[in-house]
Amino acid sequence: MSALKNVKILDLTRVLSGPFCTAMLADMGAEVIKVEHPMGGDGAREPSAAVNGESLYFMSLNRGKKGITLNLKDKKGLEILKSLIKKSDVIVENFRPGVMGKLGLSYPDVKKINPGIIYASISGFGQDSPMKHLPAFDLVAQAMGGIMSINGQKGAPPTRVGVSLGDTSTALYTAFAIVTALYNREKTGYGQSIDVSMVDSIFSLLEMSLFSYLGDEKEVQGRMGSRHPTSYPYDVFEAKDGYFTIATFDNTGFSRLCEVMDRAELMEDERFLTDTIRGKNDAALKEIIHSWSNELTVEQVLDILEQARVPASPIYNIQQIAESDHIKAREMLVPVDHPVAGPTRIPAMPVKFSHTRATIQGPSPLLGEHTKEVLKNELGFDDQFIKKLADNKII
Amino acid sequence: MSALKNVKILDLTRVLSGPFCTAMLADMGAEVIKVEHPMGGDGAREPSAAVNGESLYFMSLNRGKKGITLNLKDKKGLEILKSLIKKSDVIVENFRPGVMGKLGLSYPDVKKINPGIIYASISGFGQDSPMKHLPAFDLVAQAMGGIMSINGQKGAPPTRVGVSLGDTSTALYTAFAIVTALYNREKTGYGQSIDVSMVDSIFSLLEMSLFSYLGDEKEVQGRMGSRHPTSYPYDVFEAKDGYFTIATFDNTGFSRLCEVMDRAELMEDERFLTDTIRGKNDAALKEIIHSWSNELTVEQVLDILEQARVPASPIYNIQQIAESDHIKAREMLVPVDHPVAGPTRIPAMPVKFSHTRATIQGPSPLLGEHTKEVLKNELGFDDQFIKKLADNKII
Repeated sequence: MSALKNVKILDLTRVLSGPFCTAMLADMGAEVIKVEHPMGGDGAREPSAAVNGESLYFMSLNRGKKGITLNLKDKKGLEILKSLIKKSDVIVENFRPGVMGKLGLSYPDVKKINPGIIYASISGFGQDSPMKHLPAFDLVAQAMGGIMSINGQKGAPPTRVGVSLGDTSTALYTAFAIVTALYNREKTGYGQSIDVSMVDSIFSLLEMSLFSYLGDEKEVQGRMGSRHPTSYPYDVFEAKDGYFTIATFDNTGFSRLCEVMDRAELMEDERFLTDTIRGKNDAALKEIIHSWSNELTVEQVLDILEQARVPASPIYNIQQIAESDHIKAREMLVPVDHPVAGPTRIPAMPVKFSHTRATIQGPSPLLGEHTKEVLKNELGFDDQFIKKLADNKII
Repeated sequence: MSALKNVKILDLTRVLSGPFCTAMLADMGAEVIKVEHPMGGDGAREPSAAVNGESLYFMSLNRGKKGITLNLKDKKGLEILKSLIKKSDVIVENFRPGVMGKLGLSYPDVKKINPGIIYASISGFGQDSPMKHLPAFDLVAQAMGGIMSINGQKGAPPTRVGVSLGDTSTALYTAFAIVTALYNREKTGYGQSIDVSMVDSIFSLLEMSLFSYLGDEKEVQGRMGSRHPTSYPYDVFEAKDGYFTIATFDNTGFSRLCEVMDRAELMEDERFLTDTIRGKNDAALKEIIHSWSNELTVEQVLDILEQARVPASPIYNIQQIAESDHIKAREMLVPVDHPVAGPTRIPAMPVKFSHTRATIQGPSPLLGEHTKEVLKNELGFDDQFIKKLADNKII
């Protein structure tokens, strides 16, 4: 059973935010038709990490989609797109604001062709921001969204989050919004437009640091490494062969920690009486913990802490989590068989539905792989006409 | 118009992941009934950042919800909950795996009471992971999900992302999943269970670093500060009074940069001929850029780069983004009038719908504010019976 069976999505997006969003919808069974320029297509096809020369980035973000090519700068190409719009439930685009309008594909334009359409736009700043002309790269969205000012070690420069969160958080909001609009359309018959920006998405995730500023104290927090804003020890610590975390908020956890370190007297130490007081004397406490953990391996430390029921964990690198029993048990890496790359593992969507299971429907499309099929089946074009379009570089 | 009008959600969640998810659903018009323990309620009520003593964290994450108290360890309390389940479309919980089962509230149990229910569970590792017994704090999910190994400066310790991304990314997936299940139920009549884990959610966001490991090179990337894995200059740089970003991937942007720095000869320098080659000589290029930018203020640098159309940006702290024209224009901080805190600004959901506008429906509930109303209206209890429940500390 597929939740989004029979939902047709016309996908004009490239690289990360849009494709990440439509991949989620494809996994839920929607038919996603990805439209690419005949010359080269989506920039994500450029292989930076590859299997047999095929970009894993593209493969992962475009699994289970159909791929067609269409030159939207050509009048005929645009006409074909409009015919496909008539047959679609959803259109998703992540051009710079204004580009769709110049193509005659603004929401009011598209609504005339298909009144019930759901029209989702992803951009750096939104369709109506005074800053909408600024470049919409992930680094910029993270820099201006505020998150870099609170990410990184104390004293270090503001640090980009190590993943493209400006893109992916926007993708998640947009996927939520599209399904919400589909539900509403089911109830009311109305389509609508959806406008999601990367800066807004980053801003929406600031939580504690934003609350600290909006609260009575008006505190502008900066970077504080891995530690909790107030509680301690909730931080990263060092053993003799690597790092680990301790994540305790309360005196129960702390007293257990003191016992395993054979330092029961710390519980009476006025620097460490409560969570909040410990938070203010974090450097002193960190040094004490290190004087214990520096003598042990990470494995030894974690064994001791688990026994004593002190919340703690290893810190996995990419290989360790990818090959972990957890990821295996959760089937979070899924094999796909790609015509060029061959059998390849790509990450699954992390939602386990009991009934409408999220399923990777197939490999990503080769450039233009489904052009013929879609033009024939959806629009009834014949071979001769399709050949002419190809000869004229419209597809 | 509200997209989720008439959708009833029973919310058994606390602190961050669950409440963030149900706040999104409340903004779309769902009726969310938050169930709290009569003694103290959700831990997020503890004010760490506050307005007039009221926790902004709680206010923001629970806006527009109804709040009732119910002691689920009491037989009668549990019975009342089951009566409410009968009248709900969705139930959301973020207890440790197994807790709901012990209460007789596992999905199979609840399905017997309400066959069409959508039952969403959020946890650290998932309902069936071999690691499900481990502590499910955000720090642990980030540490084991792999993201900390790639977040932070080169040479620095693994660094927690400066926001609770383990919680919030899971919230976003769960909100998407719930609405997807609602859509499917509308089409088919079937409910289902949904199981989302924090570690899986973090894992799903690794993109480039995960692809690098899954690709032919099997590269295990580490921390690389703010820079792009391959391209340069896409990084954070220093001016004499602060930091800024340059975000250029190609020779066009680089040649413009060389010109404004009056260093046209760099375009011929064999260390900087292409994006990828520049990426390998990042330290040398960073030094050259700094020798130029160190003489200027951030404002001067950004003026020059904007004129020359080199993608670049300021790095906003929390106050700067919160008070920016962008956030004002996008209405991303919304006033709510809270009975205790008074008029307070909280962050909005970053999706602009043209038809079913996301709207903060009201302030967060005081502890048990709607207990009477809900028990009367939903279950037909009378004042006397409600008083008895209160006297017995069941509500």
